[in-house]
Amino acid sequence: MANYKSYNFGSLSSVDQYTFAPEGMPISVPGKLFLKEPLELTSVEVSVNKDKPGTGMSFFHRHKDNEEVYIFVKGKGEMVIDDERFEVKEGSVVKVNPEAKRSWWNTGDEDLLYIVIQGAQGSMPNTTIEDGVLMDGQVPWS
Amino acid sequence: MANYKSYNFGSLSSVDQYTFAPEGMPISVPGKLFLKEPLELTSVEVSVNKDKPGTGMSFFHRHKDNEEVYIFVKGKGEMVIDDERFEVKEGSVVKVNPEAKRSWWNTGDEDLLYIVIQGAQGSMPNTTIEDGVLMDGQVPWS
Repeated sequence: MANYKSYNFGSLSSVDQYTFAPEGMPISVPGKLFLKEPLELTSVEVSVNKDKPGTGMSFFHRHKDNEEVYIFVKGKGEMVIDDERFEVKEGSVVKVNPEAKRSWWNTGDEDLLYIVIQGAQGSMPNTTIEDGVLMDGQVPWS
Repeated sequence: MANYKSYNFGSLSSVDQYTFAPEGMPISVPGKLFLKEPLELTSVEVSVNKDKPGTGMSFFHRHKDNEEVYIFVKGKGEMVIDDERFEVKEGSVVKVNPEAKRSWWNTGDEDLLYIVIQGAQGSMPNTTIEDGVLMDGQVPWS
C-alpha cells in the first residue's frame, strides 16, 4: 500500500465551491473544506478556507481537546479571541488554545484565504526536528 | 494569560528571507520557517515554505513518528515518495506516512509556495468535528 495519499481541491480562490454542513448540527459554513477524510489523516484535522469580503465565521465556538493554528495566506480580517480583537492579514499565524472563544471575518476588499489546523493539545513531543531522518540517494532534480 | 499566541512572518513570497539550519545537523534549507517555537505549539509542527524555480528539497528524508501533510498554495512542482513521482500544484494536498522516503521541487516558472504540517501519527481521535462546541454571543461583524 502506498505510503501517501494525495488529492487536489482546486484553486484556493474557488474554495467557496465547498460548504461545511455537518449532519445533525445547526451550522453551515460556506467556503470551508476539511481534509481529514479525503487524506485519511491520523494526526491532525486541516481545513482550507475562503471568506468573501464582508463575511466570516457566523458564530463563536471553542474546542474540547484541540489546539488550533490559523495561517492566513491572502487578504485581511479581524479575529476575536475571548475579550481581545486584533487584525490578521497575509502572513499572520495564530495559535488558539482549546478553551478560547473565537470568531473571525474578512474586513478587506479581496477574499480572505486561510488554513486551519487542529491537533490534540499536548500531543506533539518536543522533538519535532529530531523526528526527521536523512536518507541516502540523489534527488532527481539536482 | 491569553488563550492565544500570534505572529506575522511577512508575505508568503518573502519566506525565502528565512533559512532552516538546525544546530549540529549537516543541512540547510532556504525558504523554510518553522512555527512551533514562535507560536509555542503543543499539537503540531508547521512550516511555511518557498522554493524558487529550479530549486527544492536537496535531500531525501523520512520521519520516525510524524505523519506529514503538504498543502501547495501556489506554483507547480513534483514530489517523489518512495518509488512514485507525481505532479503537485496549487490545491494539491498530500499526506505522507512517517516511513516514506520523500523529496520535492519546483518545476515551474514561478515560486512554489506550500505549508507542511507534522503531527504524531495516530494522535488525532476520530471525533474532530465533535471537538467543537458552539458558544453564545453575537459575532461583531454580522
